[in-house]
Amino acid sequence: MKDKAAIKKMIEELKTLKTDDMYLNDFFHTWKESDDEIEAVFEVAEILRAMRENNISTKVFDSGLGISVFRDNSTRTRFSFTSACNLLGLAVQDLDENKSQIAHGETVRETANMISFMADVIGIRDDMYIGKGHTYQKTVATAVQEGYDDGILEQRPTIVNLQCDIDHPTQCMADMMHIINHFGGVENLKGKKVAMTWAYSPSYGKPLSVPQGVIGLFTRFGMDVVLAHPEGYNVMPEIEEVAKENAAKCGGSYQRVNSMEEAFQDADIVYPKSWAPFAVMEERTKIVENGDQAALKDLEKKCLATNAQFKNWTCTEDLMKTTKEGKALYLHCLPADITGVSCKEGEVEASVFDRYLVPLYKQASYKPYVIAAMIFLAKFQSPSAKLEELLEQATKRVL
Amino acid sequence: MKDKAAIKKMIEELKTLKTDDMYLNDFFHTWKESDDEIEAVFEVAEILRAMRENNISTKVFDSGLGISVFRDNSTRTRFSFTSACNLLGLAVQDLDENKSQIAHGETVRETANMISFMADVIGIRDDMYIGKGHTYQKTVATAVQEGYDDGILEQRPTIVNLQCDIDHPTQCMADMMHIINHFGGVENLKGKKVAMTWAYSPSYGKPLSVPQGVIGLFTRFGMDVVLAHPEGYNVMPEIEEVAKENAAKCGGSYQRVNSMEEAFQDADIVYPKSWAPFAVMEERTKIVENGDQAALKDLEKKCLATNAQFKNWTCTEDLMKTTKEGKALYLHCLPADITGVSCKEGEVEASVFDRYLVPLYKQASYKPYVIAAMIFLAKFQSPSAKLEELLEQATKRVL
Amino acid sequence: MKDKAAIKKMIEELKTLKTDDMYLNDFFHTWKESDDEIEAVFEVAEILRAMRENNISTKVFDSGLGISVFRDNSTRTRFSFTSACNLLGLAVQDLDENKSQIAHGETVRETANMISFMADVIGIRDDMYIGKGHTYQKTVATAVQEGYDDGILEQRPTIVNLQCDIDHPTQCMADMMHIINHFGGVENLKGKKVAMTWAYSPSYGKPLSVPQGVIGLFTRFGMDVVLAHPEGYNVMPEIEEVAKENAAKCGGSYQRVNSMEEAFQDADIVYPKSWAPFAVMEERTKIVENGDQAALKDLEKKCLATNAQFKNWTCTEDLMKTTKEGKALYLHCLPADITGVSCKEGEVEASVFDRYLVPLYKQASYKPYVIAAMIFLAKFQSPSAKLEELLEQATKRVL
Repeated sequence: MKDKAAIKKMIEELKTLKTDDMYLNDFFHTWKESDDEIEAVFEVAEILRAMRENNISTKVFDSGLGISVFRDNSTRTRFSFTSACNLLGLAVQDLDENKSQIAHGETVRETANMISFMADVIGIRDDMYIGKGHTYQKTVATAVQEGYDDGILEQRPTIVNLQCDIDHPTQCMADMMHIINHFGGVENLKGKKVAMTWAYSPSYGKPLSVPQGVIGLFTRFGMDVVLAHPEGYNVMPEIEEVAKENAAKCGGSYQRVNSMEEAFQDADIVYPKSWAPFAVMEERTKIVENGDQAALKDLEKKCLATNAQFKNWTCTEDLMKTTKEGKALYLHCLPADITGVSCKEGEVEASVFDRYLVPLYKQASYKPYVIAAMIFLAKFQSPSAKLEELLEQATKRVL
Repeated sequence: MKDKAAIKKMIEELKTLKTDDMYLNDFFHTWKESDDEIEAVFEVAEILRAMRENNISTKVFDSGLGISVFRDNSTRTRFSFTSACNLLGLAVQDLDENKSQIAHGETVRETANMISFMADVIGIRDDMYIGKGHTYQKTVATAVQEGYDDGILEQRPTIVNLQCDIDHPTQCMADMMHIINHFGGVENLKGKKVAMTWAYSPSYGKPLSVPQGVIGLFTRFGMDVVLAHPEGYNVMPEIEEVAKENAAKCGGSYQRVNSMEEAFQDADIVYPKSWAPFAVMEERTKIVENGDQAALKDLEKKCLATNAQFKNWTCTEDLMKTTKEGKALYLHCLPADITGVSCKEGEVEASVFDRYLVPLYKQASYKPYVIAAMIFLAKFQSPSAKLEELLEQATKRVL
Repeated sequence: MKDKAAIKKMIEELKTLKTDDMYLNDFFHTWKESDDEIEAVFEVAEILRAMRENNISTKVFDSGLGISVFRDNSTRTRFSFTSACNLLGLAVQDLDENKSQIAHGETVRETANMISFMADVIGIRDDMYIGKGHTYQKTVATAVQEGYDDGILEQRPTIVNLQCDIDHPTQCMADMMHIINHFGGVENLKGKKVAMTWAYSPSYGKPLSVPQGVIGLFTRFGMDVVLAHPEGYNVMPEIEEVAKENAAKCGGSYQRVNSMEEAFQDADIVYPKSWAPFAVMEERTKIVENGDQAALKDLEKKCLATNAQFKNWTCTEDLMKTTKEGKALYLHCLPADITGVSCKEGEVEASVFDRYLVPLYKQASYKPYVIAAMIFLAKFQSPSAKLEELLEQATKRVL
């Protein structure tokens, strides 16, 4: 556990980072953030965690609301968002679209304002349809900005992307914090090989945001990132471009292969996970828009049949043995499809999954702090000064 | 933005108002409150808003619950109530009647006590059935009063009417605050013409509480209030009586006309909105009580057909031009049925609605403060002393 | 109302009780707790109540979450848990299994960790299936203990049993506090006769946890506890063993009879309430596991027919007259099936129920404090020192 001296040191490090552009801004995609900004999120997350471990309250809000909008079922992200808000002093109010009469299109602006009179943050998860999730989040952001400029809102709520169709920044940054801690520091990551690979699952239509988020973020740390998937299971080409540019700039590499074996060979980190092909997700979005239930059934049938050809894309003990010293760090955003446990044939063998249970749960444990850090950096022009103030007053979290 | 000196001045004004009867009492209908009491709600709401704008915490509760009971879907009111509670330091617990086994009739008393052991306020929205909503709220109020008198409850939760079958006080008082601010003070309202008019909507059965609340409240400010609707779309006669009495006492006027054009002519304020005739709402309540689905369908069909005869009752640009200098303040409680946007033919033309977007959102922004003020005045025998205390301690809302 | 001096006296009494084993532990069944521990729950509950009555804040958490898991509809228990958490400073986040994709079996461990990163307490109600509820709660407890030991969780959330298939400790301890207060102190209970009796209800399948909890707890106070039910309506034999052992140790008695009349004769306390036979609950659990809807219907039909033979098992005025001086204290966990009110024929006559309304509501009012006391004792190694600290700082609950 880090002590107060360690916390002070981290605050000093934070002071060297430029975070002005995060102030009163939103967090959508990691690649829109500068290296300083990404580092600042990690730093603030670590500081908040260390303060909590030292029983020091990090409540910067005496009152205020965090609004959650989940357009899909959620446990992990819901609890992470609630935890982050609570850690900072915000109460959570869920916008339950079933209990409200939320209008679409033209009136997103109206809803955004109506829920924001006392909102300091709005966390949105909307990952189901290609071309929709991020667009919706941007629309909300524009609406509350206008509301703030027009004097309707007394404060400008920050939008935090809790998963969209393009990126899953709170997940991938939690993953990255886990990696940094596991390998003993960001300076040890240079040259490490990461295998982000597709894996078979008995379901179809899982979002692309995790593989995209991973290649878009992990390529910024000088690592050799390999994306592996069966032919046809491509991610969005724009994000591959981001990954290539990152790699070129940061001294690592990015490549795509069509074999899980090749990706796992000597890998330091493996992230085997199912997703749907980008093209399928686009088709599905159109079908849903047209409300064509028969076509949706057909698509599902066709996709499951295609998926079934790749049941051998699964993270076995044998494959794990081919990784660096047979001990690659196994990652998953959870829940995983575990062969013989949650399904007949899935993404990972039970013995592999079980062996990594503790690190997997630790991986997840960073998410509340990542979200809290994103909020913190959007709310304070000088985050280091505020953290010093919290440290100084040292209110106990538990009496 | 009002500064501390302005806040102090408002607190001085508050001291001149008699609010003793609000202490440990409920807020059901505006016409049951004295002029001082109505003014006190506006004053406290403005003070709370100004304190928040100055980053001064208004948390008067260190712990405690605000209970929400919504017997109808709700976004706006739900968020307003949550915001108000949070502003004062209360956590919100929703009584979700689907997740509970709430009994009716004889056991409202039981439920009321069971949810109130640590409740400081209960906000209730129950607006669907004539003769039901207010009765339910009164039953809850009686039950918690008895519970308090019998030593079951350690505190007497205040009931706040978040909309009933008769009045919608938090809406109409927010509307009024908007008007006061728009026209630069309550002293400027004398002689202003208000047109509360029916408007066509493709739905039927919208509550009467807004038009009734408006004529019951707006007639207290020396304004000339005109209620306009097609023949047969009457509101409750008792409330028209209230409006007439108010007008007689306050030096304004109240009249009813059967033409939107007549109402809009030279109006300073227009409030075009759909509602169902009182007689229809009574019939509907009986049908629902009997559980006669076929009769309900018939009623709906009949009403929609009747409604359809009055599609020309819509707020057009042409009509707006006939108002005072063509610039009447357009009001709506939202969401509105906007022609060509949320429906084919509705209450208002899109261009009119769009032009008033900012004022409409501002109108809505007063509601959380109105609710908070109602709670505040019910909780403190000397509200001004408590506000001075808050101002003195000046705890920051955001660090 | 108890004043500060009385509170100090209670804190002194608390100091004489050994509660070390409660620290960082869970609360499942009363019979797993020592006499000191049971007494400490009552003592802390009374202290928290008295502090609240004196407007002294008992917020020991500056931030933190209380997680609620209700696998069955609930009003009373939900509000009690929320109240308890709020009283101590925790925000409540509900784990709504319909809005999440909670896995069963192997992954309860995963869910338990995922919701617990910032959880200080998890309250669970899972009472529907014999052999399931307690097992689930234990699995969650084991999972969070492992998570804490493995460094995943920074704090060890306490599990509070809000009702399982075996015991309902928060209910029965609230019942007991009510009895102690009613009779003017625990020292007055020796030799009092308690009749825990089955009563007819038009439903079937009500949980056994209340009668079991009552005989398992009430036999510890030197009272003569009689369990009465029609033949075949047995409770779990293990719990009868607990009751017998308690009675032997504490100088009271425990016996089972097959007549309501015999049980009521000269009773000081009566608790007539419906439940399903243990054997039926076991059968039902198996049927539900097999998903056999037809068998479930059959079972229900059979049980209702059996129940119907015992409609005379109802708490009438005539029966009440046979109790000690005709004035036994009538208890119920609510809601009751009241003849002619909530059903045609039920557990109790309306006039009896009505006469006891105030004491019944008081009985319920202890539950939030019992839950808060259980949390408090699990969180602080020296609860008396913390209570003294709260008393010393004397932060006002309401300004």
